[in-house]
Amino acid sequence: MSYSIGILGTSGFTGKECLRLLGMHPEFEVTCQQSLREEPGEGLGYAGALHEDKSNGLDLSQLDGLDAVLVCGPHERSATLVPQLLKVVPKVVDLSAAYRLADTSLYPRFYGFDHPRPDLLADRVFGLTEWARDDLKEARLVANPGCYVTSVLLPIKALLESGCVAEGSDLIADCKSGVSGAGKSLGPSTHFSSVHEDFRAYAVGSHRHEPEIREQLGTDRLYFTPHLLPVFRGILSTLHVKPAPGLTVSDLREALEARYAEEAFVEILPEGLPCLSQVQGSNLCRIGLVGHGDRVVLVSCLDNLVKGAAGQALQNLNVMFGIPETLGLQQASLAPRGWR
Amino acid sequence: MSYSIGILGTSGFTGKECLRLLGMHPEFEVTCQQSLREEPGEGLGYAGALHEDKSNGLDLSQLDGLDAVLVCGPHERSATLVPQLLKVVPKVVDLSAAYRLADTSLYPRFYGFDHPRPDLLADRVFGLTEWARDDLKEARLVANPGCYVTSVLLPIKALLESGCVAEGSDLIADCKSGVSGAGKSLGPSTHFSSVHEDFRAYAVGSHRHEPEIREQLGTDRLYFTPHLLPVFRGILSTLHVKPAPGLTVSDLREALEARYAEEAFVEILPEGLPCLSQVQGSNLCRIGLVGHGDRVVLVSCLDNLVKGAAGQALQNLNVMFGIPETLGLQQASLAPRGWR
Amino acid sequence: MSYSIGILGTSGFTGKECLRLLGMHPEFEVTCQQSLREEPGEGLGYAGALHEDKSNGLDLSQLDGLDAVLVCGPHERSATLVPQLLKVVPKVVDLSAAYRLADTSLYPRFYGFDHPRPDLLADRVFGLTEWARDDLKEARLVANPGCYVTSVLLPIKALLESGCVAEGSDLIADCKSGVSGAGKSLGPSTHFSSVHEDFRAYAVGSHRHEPEIREQLGTDRLYFTPHLLPVFRGILSTLHVKPAPGLTVSDLREALEARYAEEAFVEILPEGLPCLSQVQGSNLCRIGLVGHGDRVVLVSCLDNLVKGAAGQALQNLNVMFGIPETLGLQQASLAPRGWR
Amino acid sequence: MSYSIGILGTSGFTGKECLRLLGMHPEFEVTCQQSLREEPGEGLGYAGALHEDKSNGLDLSQLDGLDAVLVCGPHERSATLVPQLLKVVPKVVDLSAAYRLADTSLYPRFYGFDHPRPDLLADRVFGLTEWARDDLKEARLVANPGCYVTSVLLPIKALLESGCVAEGSDLIADCKSGVSGAGKSLGPSTHFSSVHEDFRAYAVGSHRHEPEIREQLGTDRLYFTPHLLPVFRGILSTLHVKPAPGLTVSDLREALEARYAEEAFVEILPEGLPCLSQVQGSNLCRIGLVGHGDRVVLVSCLDNLVKGAAGQALQNLNVMFGIPETLGLQQASLAPRGWR
Repeated sequence: MSYSIGILGTSGFTGKECLRLLGMHPEFEVTCQQSLREEPGEGLGYAGALHEDKSNGLDLSQLDGLDAVLVCGPHERSATLVPQLLKVVPKVVDLSAAYRLADTSLYPRFYGFDHPRPDLLADRVFGLTEWARDDLKEARLVANPGCYVTSVLLPIKALLESGCVAEGSDLIADCKSGVSGAGKSLGPSTHFSSVHEDFRAYAVGSHRHEPEIREQLGTDRLYFTPHLLPVFRGILSTLHVKPAPGLTVSDLREALEARYAEEAFVEILPEGLPCLSQVQGSNLCRIGLVGHGDRVVLVSCLDNLVKGAAGQALQNLNVMFGIPETLGLQQASLAPRGWR
Repeated sequence: MSYSIGILGTSGFTGKECLRLLGMHPEFEVTCQQSLREEPGEGLGYAGALHEDKSNGLDLSQLDGLDAVLVCGPHERSATLVPQLLKVVPKVVDLSAAYRLADTSLYPRFYGFDHPRPDLLADRVFGLTEWARDDLKEARLVANPGCYVTSVLLPIKALLESGCVAEGSDLIADCKSGVSGAGKSLGPSTHFSSVHEDFRAYAVGSHRHEPEIREQLGTDRLYFTPHLLPVFRGILSTLHVKPAPGLTVSDLREALEARYAEEAFVEILPEGLPCLSQVQGSNLCRIGLVGHGDRVVLVSCLDNLVKGAAGQALQNLNVMFGIPETLGLQQASLAPRGWR
Repeated sequence: MSYSIGILGTSGFTGKECLRLLGMHPEFEVTCQQSLREEPGEGLGYAGALHEDKSNGLDLSQLDGLDAVLVCGPHERSATLVPQLLKVVPKVVDLSAAYRLADTSLYPRFYGFDHPRPDLLADRVFGLTEWARDDLKEARLVANPGCYVTSVLLPIKALLESGCVAEGSDLIADCKSGVSGAGKSLGPSTHFSSVHEDFRAYAVGSHRHEPEIREQLGTDRLYFTPHLLPVFRGILSTLHVKPAPGLTVSDLREALEARYAEEAFVEILPEGLPCLSQVQGSNLCRIGLVGHGDRVVLVSCLDNLVKGAAGQALQNLNVMFGIPETLGLQQASLAPRGWR
Repeated sequence: MSYSIGILGTSGFTGKECLRLLGMHPEFEVTCQQSLREEPGEGLGYAGALHEDKSNGLDLSQLDGLDAVLVCGPHERSATLVPQLLKVVPKVVDLSAAYRLADTSLYPRFYGFDHPRPDLLADRVFGLTEWARDDLKEARLVANPGCYVTSVLLPIKALLESGCVAEGSDLIADCKSGVSGAGKSLGPSTHFSSVHEDFRAYAVGSHRHEPEIREQLGTDRLYFTPHLLPVFRGILSTLHVKPAPGLTVSDLREALEARYAEEAFVEILPEGLPCLSQVQGSNLCRIGLVGHGDRVVLVSCLDNLVKGAAGQALQNLNVMFGIPETLGLQQASLAPRGWR
C-alpha cells in the first residue's frame, strides 16, 4: 500500500461505498475513518481511531501524515471542515456539494447557508475526471460532482462543445435515480411503502443539481426533471436534444465517440440504449443515442454511488497521485454479463 | 343485471382485468367469455361455453343475444374478427389497436398487416371517453385507446385546444410504464431478471403509440419516449411543454381545470405532482403541473390496465348504454389513502 | 346507508385500509374519523369533524349516536380508550392488540404496559370470525386478531380440533409478511434500502403474535418465526406439521374442507399451494397442503391489511349487525385472474 | 496469469457469473469459453474460439492444454460431456448436478435420465470446499454442490457431526431463494408479473436438492421446503432444529464456531441473524442462531450465484491448484457496509 487515506463521514451510503471500493484498491489504505454523525458510538475508526473530539467531534491532529482525505459529510459541515483539513493534509476530495458551485450566491438558496470560504472556490477543481484531468494533477481541493450531474454532463458537455446542439434550443434532461441517491435519512419519501411499486417526479425546478449542471454547461437552457425509481442503485438520464441544422444522430454519436475514445469509464454504444443493470456496481458511464425524427434521444447510465460518487472520487485520487486511473475500479457490473 | 356482455380474449392481462372489473359492476353480466389463444383448454367460457369452434375457434352464433362484446385479442386477429361480431351483436368495444388508427397506411409499418376493413375505420369512435361522449352514445364500434395514449392525450389535447402551447414548439412525452403493459408473452424483456432493479428506455421512435397520439393531436411535434419500470401496474408520463407567450403554469392549470371540472375520472391537482400509487387499481387519471423557468412540466398518472384499458372500456360501455358513467368504476386505489 | 361508523386512528395503514374498504361498503357510512397521532392537522374528520379535543385529543361526545367504532390506535392508547368508547357507542372493534390476550401477565412483557381493564378482557370476543360467529352477534367489544395470527390459526386450529396432528409434536410456523405489517413508523428496518432486494427473519422468540397464537391454540408447542418480505401486502405462512399416526395429507385436507365448506373467505385448495398475489386486496385466506414423506406442509395466504386487519374487522361488523357477512368484501384480488 | 481455464456453458447465469468472477482473479485466465445452447451465434469464444463443432457442438481438441474446465451445462448434457473432458484436461469442475448424487438410482427420478457413467461417481469429489479440502487437492472431477444444498449443509453437517441435534428429531429447512436460482429459461414462473410483489413455495417434496442434502447428511429426517423470493440474488435458509438434551443455543453456536474458526468464507454471528444483503455479491456464508424455547432457529445466508455456484467453484479450483483459497474471492457484498 502506497498511500494513507482518511474518510470523514462513514455513516452514510457515500462514505460506506468509499470504504467498499477502497477495500479493493491495491495502492490506497484507509488508515483513519470517522462518522460525522452525532450518534455516540458511530465514530469509531477501525484502523486508527480519533481519540480526541474537538471542533465538533474531530481531532485534526489525528489526520497528520495522511496523504489524502475524502469528505462525505453533510454539505454545511463540509464547508467549514474542508479549510481545516487543508491545513493538515495535502489533498482533499469533498464528496459533498460544499465546493461544487462557483457562484456563491447559489448556496443560500439551494443549500441554506452562506458559503464560509468563497476564496477557496476559485482554486478548487470540479472533479468531473474526464474534463479535469490536467487540473487534478496539481489540485489540493477537488469538489466531486453530483451523481445526476455526472450523468448529464458527460454526454451534454461533449455535444455542446462540439457544436452538435441547435443554438437556442432547450435541452430536456428527464432523469431517474435509485433510492440510494436520497441517502440514509429516514422520512416518508424513503419508506419502503412510498417507493416500492411506485414512481414519482420530485423537486422539479428546485433540485440542487440543476444549478450545478447549468453552471458547468454555461447555459440555463438545460431543464432538469428528477424522478425516484423503485431500485437501490443507478441513474438513467434521458436527454432530449435538438441537433444543430444538418446534423443527424450519427454525427452526434461520432462527436461523442471522438471525445471519449480514450476513456476507460465512458462508453458510447455503437447502437441501442444502455440500462441500469449494465452499470450497477461499476464505475462506467454508458451512453446510447437514437434518432427520433428531427430530434435525438440520448440515454446516459451510471451507478450513482460509484461513477456518481465514490468511484469517481477514487478515479480523481488516482489522477491526483499520478497512478493508473483505472486502478481498483475495474469491477464488472454485478449483473451476469450478456443477459441484460 | 341489465346487460349481457361477452369477452373475447380472456387469457391476457387486459381480458382478465375486464373480468375483474365486470365482476364488480352492478349492471353488466359476463355471459360469454373465450380465450383467443390457441392453447387447448384455455377457451372455456364460464357462464355459457362456446361449443362449436368455427372461424378460427369461434362460433359466432353463440354470441347472439349479447348486448355488447369486448375484444381483447391480438391486433390482426381483432381486425378480422370485429366485422364478424358487428353482424351479431349491437355494440363492440375493441381493446386491441386494430381500429385505433384512421390512417390505414400506418398499419403495415406499425402492426405488420394491411387493414382488412378501411371502411369501418371511418365510422368507429375513438373511445377517449372524455372527448368522445356524444359519439359514444350512438356508436356500434369503439376503438379503445392505448394506455400511454390516454395518459398523454388527456392533458395535451386540452392544452392544445385551449391554445396554451407555444406554436411550433416540440412536445416531449417522456413516459414510464409498468410491465403489465407488455402483456403476458414470455421473452427476455419480461423475465424478472431483466426488469427487477433495472430500468430502460425502449422502442424510441418506433413505438406503436406514437402515431396514435400524433393522429389524435393532429401534430407530429409530439415526441414519445417510453421506458419500462420495475413495477406491475401504472403509467407515469412526464410532459415537457413550452407555454404560449405570456402564459404561466397557473394559466395551464386553469385551462385543464376548466376542461375537466365535471369529469369523475380526470383530476387536476391544485398543487404538487401525482405518483403511481395514487392511481393503481382505480380508473383515475391524475394530472399535476409545475412551472420550470419559462417551461412547464406536467405529470400524468393512470393505471394502464384500468383507465388505460379495461376501466376505460367499461366507462365507454356505461356511456353507450346510457347508464351512469361511474357505475362499477369507483374503487379507490389499492394504496392506503393519505400516505402516498 | 344503514349504519354510522366511526374510525379512530386513521393515520396508519390499518386505519386507512378501513377507510378504503368502508368506502365500498353498501351499508356502512363513515361519519366520524380521527387520527390518534399528535401531528397537528392530521385529525380532521371528513364527514363530521371532532371539534373539541379533550381526553388527549378526543371529544367523546362527538361519537354519540354512532352505531360502531373501529379503533386503530397504538396498543396502550387503545387499552384506555376502549372503556371510554364503550360508554358512548354500542359496538367497538379494536384493531390494536390491546384486548387480544386473555392472560394479563403477558401485556407487560410483550407490550410494555400493565393492562388497565382486566375485567373487560373476560367479556371481549376474540374476533376470528369463522370461530367466533355466535359470540360476535352479542358482542359489545371485539378484539380483532393479529395478521400473522389469523393466517396460522385458520388452518392449525381446525387441524388440532379434528385430532389431525401427532400428539406432542412441534408445530413449526415459518411465516413471511410484507412491509405494511410493520406500519408507517419510520426506522432503519422499513427504509427502502433495508427491505428491497433483501430478506430477513426477525423477532424470533419475542414477536407479540406468538403468545396470541399459543393462547388461542391452548398449546406452547407452536413455534413462530416471522420474516420480512420485500413486498407491501400479504402474509404467507408455511406450516410444518406431523400428522397423527395413520393420517395422510388427504385426511388433513378433508378435515379442513369439512370445517370450512360453508365459509366464504376461507378456501382450501384441492391441490397445489397458494401464493401472495392470489389474495392481495381480497378478504380471502387460501390454504394448500402437500404431503412430504411422513410430514405435511401447509401454506396459508392472506392480505395482512384485509383478512389480517380491516377486512376481518368489517366481516365482524357485518356479523355484529346481522347483515350478510360478505357485504362489501367481495373484491377480487388485484392480480389479473388466472395468470397467477 | 498462471492457469488457463475453459468455461463450457456461458449462456446461463452460472456460466456468466464464472466469467464475472474469473475476470477479477489474478491467477486464472479464461482462454476458452463456449455456450452449450443451440442458438446460432451464442457459442463464440472470446479468447480462442472453438472452430469445429463435433460431439454435439464441441471440438474437444480445442481444450487441449487447458489447466481446468468449468462445466455449466444442462445436467444430462454434462453427464456425457464430463468423461470426454477428462480425457483432454487434467481438472474438471462440474457446476451442473450431473455428478452430485452418489446413488445412481436417484437420477431417473429427479433428473429424468439414467446416469451414463456410474463408475465416475465413486471417484468424484463433492465440492463443499470446507468439508472436502483434502480430497480436492488430488481431485480430477469435482461435483460443485447445489446452492440450497450449500446453505443447508454448512450449518447442519457441523451440528450433526458434533452431536448437537436431538436424535430422531426432524430437521425443518424452510428455504427461500432469489430468482436467479431458476436460471434464464423463460416460463410463466419467472415472468416479472409472477414474481414481483409475490411469494410462493414450490416443489415441496420433489425438489432435486432434497436428495442431495439427504445423501450428504446421511439422513432422511431433513425436510426441505423451497420458496421463491422477489429478489434476484441470494438464499436464506431458516433451519428449525431440536437440540440434543441439555444443549442450548450457546452450545450449538460454540460447535459451529469451533468447526469454522479457520474458515474465510463461513462466518458464525456472535449474535443476531444474517440477511441477504450482507452476502449478495460475496463468497460468504453467514450463519446466525437464536434460541426459541427448547428449540433453536438457525438462519444461513449466501449468494446462490457465488458461494452457491461460481464462487465455490473458484474456491475449489484454488484448492485444486494449491494456491491461496481466498484468491480472487474477497469482494465485499455490494450493499454499503454497516447499514444492513
